[in-house]
Amino acid sequence: MRILLVNVNTTAAITAAMVEQARAVAAAETEIIGLTPSIGATSVEGNFESYLAAVAVIDVVQSYKGPYDAVIQAGFGEHGREALQELLAVPVVDLTEAAVLLAHLLGHRYSIVTTLDRTVPLIEDRLKLAGLDAHCASIRSSGLSVLELEKDEERTTKAIVAQSVRAVREDRAEVICLGCGGMAGLSTAVAMGAGVPVVDGVTAGTKLAESLVALNLSTSKVRTFALPRTKTVLGWPLH
Amino acid sequence: MRILLVNVNTTAAITAAMVEQARAVAAAETEIIGLTPSIGATSVEGNFESYLAAVAVIDVVQSYKGPYDAVIQAGFGEHGREALQELLAVPVVDLTEAAVLLAHLLGHRYSIVTTLDRTVPLIEDRLKLAGLDAHCASIRSSGLSVLELEKDEERTTKAIVAQSVRAVREDRAEVICLGCGGMAGLSTAVAMGAGVPVVDGVTAGTKLAESLVALNLSTSKVRTFALPRTKTVLGWPLH
Amino acid sequence: MRILLVNVNTTAAITAAMVEQARAVAAAETEIIGLTPSIGATSVEGNFESYLAAVAVIDVVQSYKGPYDAVIQAGFGEHGREALQELLAVPVVDLTEAAVLLAHLLGHRYSIVTTLDRTVPLIEDRLKLAGLDAHCASIRSSGLSVLELEKDEERTTKAIVAQSVRAVREDRAEVICLGCGGMAGLSTAVAMGAGVPVVDGVTAGTKLAESLVALNLSTSKVRTFALPRTKTVLGWPLH
Amino acid sequence: MRILLVNVNTTAAITAAMVEQARAVAAAETEIIGLTPSIGATSVEGNFESYLAAVAVIDVVQSYKGPYDAVIQAGFGEHGREALQELLAVPVVDLTEAAVLLAHLLGHRYSIVTTLDRTVPLIEDRLKLAGLDAHCASIRSSGLSVLELEKDEERTTKAIVAQSVRAVREDRAEVICLGCGGMAGLSTAVAMGAGVPVVDGVTAGTKLAESLVALNLSTSKVRTFALPRTKTVLGWPLH
Amino acid sequence: MRILLVNVNTTAAITAAMVEQARAVAAAETEIIGLTPSIGATSVEGNFESYLAAVAVIDVVQSYKGPYDAVIQAGFGEHGREALQELLAVPVVDLTEAAVLLAHLLGHRYSIVTTLDRTVPLIEDRLKLAGLDAHCASIRSSGLSVLELEKDEERTTKAIVAQSVRAVREDRAEVICLGCGGMAGLSTAVAMGAGVPVVDGVTAGTKLAESLVALNLSTSKVRTFALPRTKTVLGWPLH
Amino acid sequence: MRILLVNVNTTAAITAAMVEQARAVAAAETEIIGLTPSIGATSVEGNFESYLAAVAVIDVVQSYKGPYDAVIQAGFGEHGREALQELLAVPVVDLTEAAVLLAHLLGHRYSIVTTLDRTVPLIEDRLKLAGLDAHCASIRSSGLSVLELEKDEERTTKAIVAQSVRAVREDRAEVICLGCGGMAGLSTAVAMGAGVPVVDGVTAGTKLAESLVALNLSTSKVRTFALPRTKTVLGWPLH
Repeated sequence: MRILLVNVNTTAAITAAMVEQARAVAAAETEIIGLTPSIGATSVEGNFESYLAAVAVIDVVQSYKGPYDAVIQAGFGEHGREALQELLAVPVVDLTEAAVLLAHLLGHRYSIVTTLDRTVPLIEDRLKLAGLDAHCASIRSSGLSVLELEKDEERTTKAIVAQSVRAVREDRAEVICLGCGGMAGLSTAVAMGAGVPVVDGVTAGTKLAESLVALNLSTSKVRTFALPRTKTVLGWPLH
Repeated sequence: MRILLVNVNTTAAITAAMVEQARAVAAAETEIIGLTPSIGATSVEGNFESYLAAVAVIDVVQSYKGPYDAVIQAGFGEHGREALQELLAVPVVDLTEAAVLLAHLLGHRYSIVTTLDRTVPLIEDRLKLAGLDAHCASIRSSGLSVLELEKDEERTTKAIVAQSVRAVREDRAEVICLGCGGMAGLSTAVAMGAGVPVVDGVTAGTKLAESLVALNLSTSKVRTFALPRTKTVLGWPLH
Repeated sequence: MRILLVNVNTTAAITAAMVEQARAVAAAETEIIGLTPSIGATSVEGNFESYLAAVAVIDVVQSYKGPYDAVIQAGFGEHGREALQELLAVPVVDLTEAAVLLAHLLGHRYSIVTTLDRTVPLIEDRLKLAGLDAHCASIRSSGLSVLELEKDEERTTKAIVAQSVRAVREDRAEVICLGCGGMAGLSTAVAMGAGVPVVDGVTAGTKLAESLVALNLSTSKVRTFALPRTKTVLGWPLH
Repeated sequence: MRILLVNVNTTAAITAAMVEQARAVAAAETEIIGLTPSIGATSVEGNFESYLAAVAVIDVVQSYKGPYDAVIQAGFGEHGREALQELLAVPVVDLTEAAVLLAHLLGHRYSIVTTLDRTVPLIEDRLKLAGLDAHCASIRSSGLSVLELEKDEERTTKAIVAQSVRAVREDRAEVICLGCGGMAGLSTAVAMGAGVPVVDGVTAGTKLAESLVALNLSTSKVRTFALPRTKTVLGWPLH
Repeated sequence: MRILLVNVNTTAAITAAMVEQARAVAAAETEIIGLTPSIGATSVEGNFESYLAAVAVIDVVQSYKGPYDAVIQAGFGEHGREALQELLAVPVVDLTEAAVLLAHLLGHRYSIVTTLDRTVPLIEDRLKLAGLDAHCASIRSSGLSVLELEKDEERTTKAIVAQSVRAVREDRAEVICLGCGGMAGLSTAVAMGAGVPVVDGVTAGTKLAESLVALNLSTSKVRTFALPRTKTVLGWPLH
Repeated sequence: MRILLVNVNTTAAITAAMVEQARAVAAAETEIIGLTPSIGATSVEGNFESYLAAVAVIDVVQSYKGPYDAVIQAGFGEHGREALQELLAVPVVDLTEAAVLLAHLLGHRYSIVTTLDRTVPLIEDRLKLAGLDAHCASIRSSGLSVLELEKDEERTTKAIVAQSVRAVREDRAEVICLGCGGMAGLSTAVAMGAGVPVVDGVTAGTKLAESLVALNLSTSKVRTFALPRTKTVLGWPLH
């Protein structure tokens, strides 16, 4: 089984880190291919960057020429998953929904700890659209930007644990989701610090993608995600 | 006052038709400038096309060099409004919210009559995100594509009236919103046929944009729509 | 175009102040006529006073003999808008919905800052009925009664700004609505103090009423707001 | 124990019929006093009539001079209950909430069968405000006006049963509430026809009022229903 | 009229205390029979104990041989009410819904003060299923276990009052519900301390059960609570 | 990895069929152990049977003596999952949530096709509690009882396909979930008939249980699912 893991930003080091996490939990027979878009921001932390990432992700996936069985859109709170679902025959999994879906199996309510305060409303919106917001206790910001996450792992872990503890005590969360692909690899440390299960979207997405392929399930092609109608599209592909 | 009306698709004839409608209701001192993107589908009727339109709209607005006081994103159910709000200092109005906001002032519940069945979930999603779905009685498809709307005005009107009448009788709507920018100009005929007020997003958006400018109100710059942080963005602008 | 602006309370000075605000933003060709009921409380701050205002407003509007194009019910959180909509052919705009509708165009969530704590549940109820509560971050009380608002503008502004700042920081509001007709005129000062857009219902209502008239839109007459059936009504009109 | 049962309309025959029903289920020591307002419509079937009834009900209750232990506002879907709660120290029960509260104890979902189609949105609004709409399967109109209900009991029963049966089959209701005070007395016949429990607001309200008095419970006086502040109220009382 | 009051736990002293409270408010002609299950935990404070109580309650009710008119399931937040409703012809009232239903008649929002923090999610779930959560301001834990409640009435009252006061001030509750059958008897003291009406589920349930019997109303037998189909059930009854 | 698959009813043939399905999709290194309770109904189709199953499932799991890594509660719409989560250290997956969670990844809305009409409200309740009802288009009954499902596979498939097709056309579902453990094995045939992806809870549950174990994730032990407090439990275990 071959799974494409597509970063939403243009920083290849983050792609590499996420691929490493995915491989760590993937089955022996699963191949993880990392893709980095050639268009867009080095880190996605807002609406403009997210919309641009949506089309950049499509662009880089469509330019991949080999066969593949599933796609993981490796961004948290980003736009674009619906377009991939519409264009592709194989299943598409986004980190946001992947993390949150597994969180539903682990406790009564979950919280998300993310990067900057400004990304909170984007995640809220994604949860609402996904119909997965009813059990969300809170979305908390760690105050660290995507690129700062990588710089000092100890500081990063501490900041995420601090918000996780508050989510459990003040917001009544029982499970924490790591709210950024760039946090991949911190789940064990955060779980130890916070005393609750911690779900990482990259590893969650990997297992869910594998599960869908194993069950021979893919996106429904009636209505919302039917293939686009044939028409003239100017300036596409972008690259 | 100068208002940019940006089409979401690349068909200039639709831009022209919408500009004509906007001018018909604008104040004497309001100048309406129509913009047509150079990238994207000739008509937007799905997720991929909508996401591409989101960035194409930003691209064409950013390449407009003169001053302006407000922007109307002239698409119904399309993505992208949040990115424009984030990037611009002036107010941004989308047809979907414009039509639906005025509908709230006219009756207990409203319905939307749109083009193809596949666009219904996109509109549902936009209403949910806008927090304006509580009074939505239904979203009905006329069965006509965006480009078919223009071809035979009588058939188009008949199809929209038929769905409007069903919305009033079966879904308990009291107001109808025209669910496509390409329907601009049909509101009077549909209102006569359906016996209820009919709101057209283009004219609603024009008056709302004028109102915001007159009241000196624009997008809040705290949190969700704060300017993007300074960072490297590869491949932008697109054109 | 002639718009009736009907105060919900019997204090003529408040009517005069609201009319002044309305005129400041109205188009040159719009005439604003202020009406003050002859029945009811000098300030409306509770359920009994609000219900009495509802019928007093109808009474004073029906006793106005000239032609008019729209009615603004100038109260925040008050009952009665539905009855006016039922009785009249012209559009009716209430300050609560007017302010909140425009707030939807300006940010992800809005808060309302009102007078006394006891009026908060009334406003909550009006938002819920209007289907406009989904994006409401909070309704905060300034602790000042309607009549106290007028006494010391500096103190009033300070109290409203203080709650607005808390709404932005603690409740995650991005836009503030002034929650009392008697606050008309303070929006600029509050916006400067709070650092976010501030919507005033009187000016919002004026522009929305003008917009509806310009678009030839009025209340739907099917079902909810159909004219009352012909029947004996004892003791009416009240005056 | 003395309970005032206040009709919302000015037709004394309906007051008498409701008092008769209330007495049929009241405890031996409960005295039911019927009150008919001197102001308002002979039957309440819309927003204007309902708002007028709200103040007429207050007016007639305040003019009652003896002691009493509870008040039943005997209208379905009408405004005004909150004002009575604010003004009085004794508990206030409205037929709408009374019927629906008991329905919650009897099945998974309930429907309401009411008079004219135009009253359906009013009832919807009251349920939403009462926070009791989650288990409402539907509100169906019998097509009969309030005054027609009395004219031909067989026809009335048949019309209500017909809608009740459709509510059970099509809307998945398991309990029916009679949606008009004027339907008092028909619950047994409708229950036999529809095959499900049928709750009548008049008898439900009577038992709930008795229960509150027996438990020494009355309206909370913090915040929403605190006594009105002392102020000048012009033209009050109305009579 | 004979009402069975079935404790959900196996502590007979709690049954006795609840029966005493029920008798204190029951009509003269109402007989209250207390039942204590022979299976299950001495106090129910979690999911396992609650599910076991659900079947233990059925077991003890089915082993009661005399006639009866209604059953009160005397637990707060416990499972099992639906099964009793399915099996029995007479009405079944659970303390959770009983308290909360009456609270709806007394104020704009209510809070519940219960025992341990771990029972809060169970109560949340019961309210959600009952469709009665919209007006719930908060569910607060007193920090006392079920069996601790009985030990020191002064300490217990103080702990409940403290949370009630916070519910009124911080959560905007206007009514308090005692969230445990073991709190029966404290409502007057808590009401005095908190300054708002306090509803006790045992007395509320008693009056509601009496009301349903008086109105000849019982559980609907269509669909959800239809009698079980005839089939082999191994190991039943349990005792 | 060893997973216990616990049937909710006492029919061993259904256990065997579900184990076969689970094994068909499980990884090579996963061992599936089927358990059948010794207490309860031969098929679970209502509230009493479901509550009894809840404790019977606990009873049989606790009597299993070997080690295991996860438990699948193999019933659709049944009670009891929370109690298992509370008692066990390993993850617990219920068929209802398993099917529905995967459905969220496959389309905009999903429907469930189940057995008898009377089980529909139970499934509704489970979805509501799980916070997974927002994207549920409908729950439809096939009209076949659990034990009838096995008798004539062709008739069963036809009945499920018929309801699936109506769910897609009338309720706007894009994905179907098989709403009974006894339907395991029919997903391919139903998918072909209905033209949309079909999720079977048994296979979905198997892959989700494997995923949680692989990710080292299990039930949060703070608050809702903390181990029961130490106390006397009469009559337990049941067997």
